[in-house]
Amino acid sequence: MKKSNKSRITVKIYNRSYTIVGEENKEHIDLVANLVDEKMREIRQANQGFDTTRLAVLTAVNVMNDYVKLKEKYNTLQDSIKRDEEN
Amino acid sequence: MKKSNKSRITVKIYNRSYTIVGEENKEHIDLVANLVDEKMREIRQANQGFDTTRLAVLTAVNVMNDYVKLKEKYNTLQDSIKRDEEN
Repeated sequence: MKKSNKSRITVKIYNRSYTIVGEENKEHIDLVANLVDEKMREIRQANQGFDTTRLAVLTAVNVMNDYVKLKEKYNTLQDSIKRDEEN
Repeated sequence: MKKSNKSRITVKIYNRSYTIVGEENKEHIDLVANLVDEKMREIRQANQGFDTTRLAVLTAVNVMNDYVKLKEKYNTLQDSIKRDEEN
């Protein structure tokens, strides 16, 4: 049987444990989990009384928003490189 | 009083309503909310029986992972442009 490259890493986010299965190393997963934990606590500051599900969904929305915007910037940068190469 | 640029847009994610306050337009917020909803449903497929909080946190982890990786790619691209300009 081929050995799988997938690792199982346990992290703590907002006082709850999660097992992350993937091909990333522990350092990367810890970094990502910490960023999510921080963002949830930051959003809670502005939304006292929200339950954890609501906080987690709003965190996901927040990060997705950042992702979509960065993706647009990335595409613009790539297009400008392409244009430069053609000229 | 100065009129605020902030809008309040209501979206539905995983069968629950959320009011998003921000400076983005409705089209952008709807896109982001749909992406989060899709991602949550995709993660549920592989994790039947998880509660909504767990699904939402794992969704946030997933998107943050994509964000961190894209940020690295973006920085690499920017560095390569800077190097080209210097040479």
